Amino acid sequence: MGVGSAQYSHQLDNVFTVGERIEMIRRVLAKEGLLNRCLIVPIPDIGQHALWVSVVLQYCPKFDVVYTNEPLTRRLFLEAGFRVEEIPKFNREVYDATRIRRLMIEGGDWESYVPDEVASFIKEIGGVERIRDLTRSDKVVKV
Amino acid sequence: MGVGSAQYSHQLDNVFTVGERIEMIRRVLAKEGLLNRCLIVPIPDIGQHALWVSVVLQYCPKFDVVYTNEPLTRRLFLEAGFRVEEIPKFNREVYDATRIRRLMIEGGDWESYVPDEVASFIKEIGGVERIRDLTRSDKVVKV
Amino acid sequence: MGVGSAQYSHQLDNVFTVGERIEMIRRVLAKEGLLNRCLIVPIPDIGQHALWVSVVLQYCPKFDVVYTNEPLTRRLFLEAGFRVEEIPKFNREVYDATRIRRLMIEGGDWESYVPDEVASFIKEIGGVERIRDLTRSDKVVKV
Amino acid sequence: MGVGSAQYSHQLDNVFTVGERIEMIRRVLAKEGLLNRCLIVPIPDIGQHALWVSVVLQYCPKFDVVYTNEPLTRRLFLEAGFRVEEIPKFNREVYDATRIRRLMIEGGDWESYVPDEVASFIKEIGGVERIRDLTRSDKVVKV
Amino acid sequence: MGVGSAQYSHQLDNVFTVGERIEMIRRVLAKEGLLNRCLIVPIPDIGQHALWVSVVLQYCPKFDVVYTNEPLTRRLFLEAGFRVEEIPKFNREVYDATRIRRLMIEGGDWESYVPDEVASFIKEIGGVERIRDLTRSDKVVKV
Amino acid sequence: MGVGSAQYSHQLDNVFTVGERIEMIRRVLAKEGLLNRCLIVPIPDIGQHALWVSVVLQYCPKFDVVYTNEPLTRRLFLEAGFRVEEIPKFNREVYDATRIRRLMIEGGDWESYVPDEVASFIKEIGGVERIRDLTRSDKVVKV
Repeated sequence: MGVGSAQYSHQLDNVFTVGERIEMIRRVLAKEGLLNRCLIVPIPDIGQHALWVSVVLQYCPKFDVVYTNEPLTRRLFLEAGFRVEEIPKFNREVYDATRIRRLMIEGGDWESYVPDEVASFIKEIGGVERIRDLTRSDKVVKV
Repeated sequence: MGVGSAQYSHQLDNVFTVGERIEMIRRVLAKEGLLNRCLIVPIPDIGQHALWVSVVLQYCPKFDVVYTNEPLTRRLFLEAGFRVEEIPKFNREVYDATRIRRLMIEGGDWESYVPDEVASFIKEIGGVERIRDLTRSDKVVKV
Repeated sequence: MGVGSAQYSHQLDNVFTVGERIEMIRRVLAKEGLLNRCLIVPIPDIGQHALWVSVVLQYCPKFDVVYTNEPLTRRLFLEAGFRVEEIPKFNREVYDATRIRRLMIEGGDWESYVPDEVASFIKEIGGVERIRDLTRSDKVVKV
Repeated sequence: MGVGSAQYSHQLDNVFTVGERIEMIRRVLAKEGLLNRCLIVPIPDIGQHALWVSVVLQYCPKFDVVYTNEPLTRRLFLEAGFRVEEIPKFNREVYDATRIRRLMIEGGDWESYVPDEVASFIKEIGGVERIRDLTRSDKVVKV
Repeated sequence: MGVGSAQYSHQLDNVFTVGERIEMIRRVLAKEGLLNRCLIVPIPDIGQHALWVSVVLQYCPKFDVVYTNEPLTRRLFLEAGFRVEEIPKFNREVYDATRIRRLMIEGGDWESYVPDEVASFIKEIGGVERIRDLTRSDKVVKV
Repeated sequence: MGVGSAQYSHQLDNVFTVGERIEMIRRVLAKEGLLNRCLIVPIPDIGQHALWVSVVLQYCPKFDVVYTNEPLTRRLFLEAGFRVEEIPKFNREVYDATRIRRLMIEGGDWESYVPDEVASFIKEIGGVERIRDLTRSDKVVKV
């Protein structure tokens, strides 16, 4: 499992450090007894799409198939000659990262849409306060 | 001829790799018999405008005049003491990159607005499929 | 006094080089006789929020309290265990960077909202012309 | 387990890509039945020692103790207030990376000094040929 | 023709800017009437060998064969599945960059070992003075 | 006063963070009553010599003369058309950074060769222990 944008955090799209994201995945995999069948690999963005496939190849053990629903990732791996498969979506309208972050910001019931291990970890590290701060600004006049 | 943003590709504003962009220019210049009078130089963005003039000077053989219509490039070279000239516009409303990309995305007649060599090269490398994929997203809720 | 985004300039949000920004601050501090009580430190953005506190620590002499109104900076230093204080606001609606830049672009009376030393320096280096150029574009069709 | 210098490979000191290094470790841990008790985390070098501790904190789940024999890593974590412990050395004169690489280059018996899984993996990917090529040069006169 | 290490100059190994190197090659090709059969492409080093092939592919139009005598470049392209050919050496002991630079530093007859166009260009830009300065140091005690 | 290599520290050539270096200079200037006549500006290395002059211009307020004894800096500013002056040397054989660092490593009398403010600051932050650690290695076989 590649965890992308590894160097980013404290952004609305990447709230958590890659270490925190790995910990969330690890706790869920541990509970499901899957830890010895999965490898979690953080992969930093290189900022140059033409190099992205090489970066993934560099960070990961050899793989045969790429599973992704992200159109750019899919295109880049297709152009590089890889087999790319879709990830079956499970109730995508509800389990959507942007929607869940919005619930966190607005004080809604976000805990129901993430695994229990993830919910308790996010509370442990003050994740809700962090995401709320990320939406604040000290600007008066908007550009 | 400087080809800027050399490290970028697979973005809506920079669809093609710099190698692909050089190839398009090269084919047109070859057809016009101008190859031995032009030098095509890819120039990477440095991301720091105050260094941009130095980057261009570093990548290009000595030059006396800068031809550009881009206001930031014009200002940076003016502040560095260069002579900057405008490029005469030819039917600018019609030969506009954003408009042509939109035609490609929407299945319109984009081929009429680029040289034949460019149109056939773009088809050769699946450029239309690429630009369409770049407009797709797997997000459900918009930020 | 940390001057952030040190590597950027010629952008709407960072019009001036960090050297120019230092010069503006220096002239005001000199007039107020405060130069020997302040240290002005340019700090480049690292682009990775999780490293930002370490970058500030690396560039600055030891400090005990952080004064900032910027929510992200405040959060990052709080998470790192620092004491963070607000800067008392003085007539914030009027002395707002975005509003003053807008006055410069539209030919309004911006000089009344910056110290005299800053106004004369900005004229000295053609700052108003620069900021106006930064708002121009050679694009016809908007994305 | 942090695997440092993650972005480097094909160098005498970092012969293998980080993906290949992860694979070697993974195969040994798998054989020992330790996969579900360890987490392997690639960590890229940032090239600025003052930021290194923050990079490690960013990439790894929370940790309490740092195990290392590398003096610079030890110093950086000590200065950041961490507890740092030595890794007990096992026959260090013999199991030394530089010595084993030298055996590979000179055609000696290197296989005896690495786990069987690692030896077979290195042969699988042509690692010995790679390391030999890295010692070659096309220079005639030495600087 | 790829001109590597494009971002470096004023180093003993890369004395000239990539723009100056392009100009030297261009003058020789022009004299030989080969300008319309060659494309000169500056390629910046990425500092990560595992990405190097992708960088070259990104900067260059499509190619089928790689000509190089540099062992690392050869290995990287071989691992990526390319056909790699040697460049026939012509009097390699004499036409050696390190040796010619040494002649420039020591005031020897370097002009006999480069094309006339290159010799006159190097004199035009004060290249000999530059290379001599690069060998100087203001250090007293050596590390 | 430009303080170069601003992003480096914990290296034999750049032992201290740029914040620590600024603090040393600041304490000496304060004692001499020179703080309001000097500006201390940290300048990060860009790693590309052809851009170095632009980086210095970007970080510093406008200047007319460059004082340096470093041959590369001198050459780069001369090529950019600046006036460059030497710094008069004061007992250079004795007040040499490499020699003083060696005294620190070997337990010699280094305090006599730096200002009192610097000596006490270095002790305050454990600078001698740091520089000694930087000379250590956990390698057994040398490359």
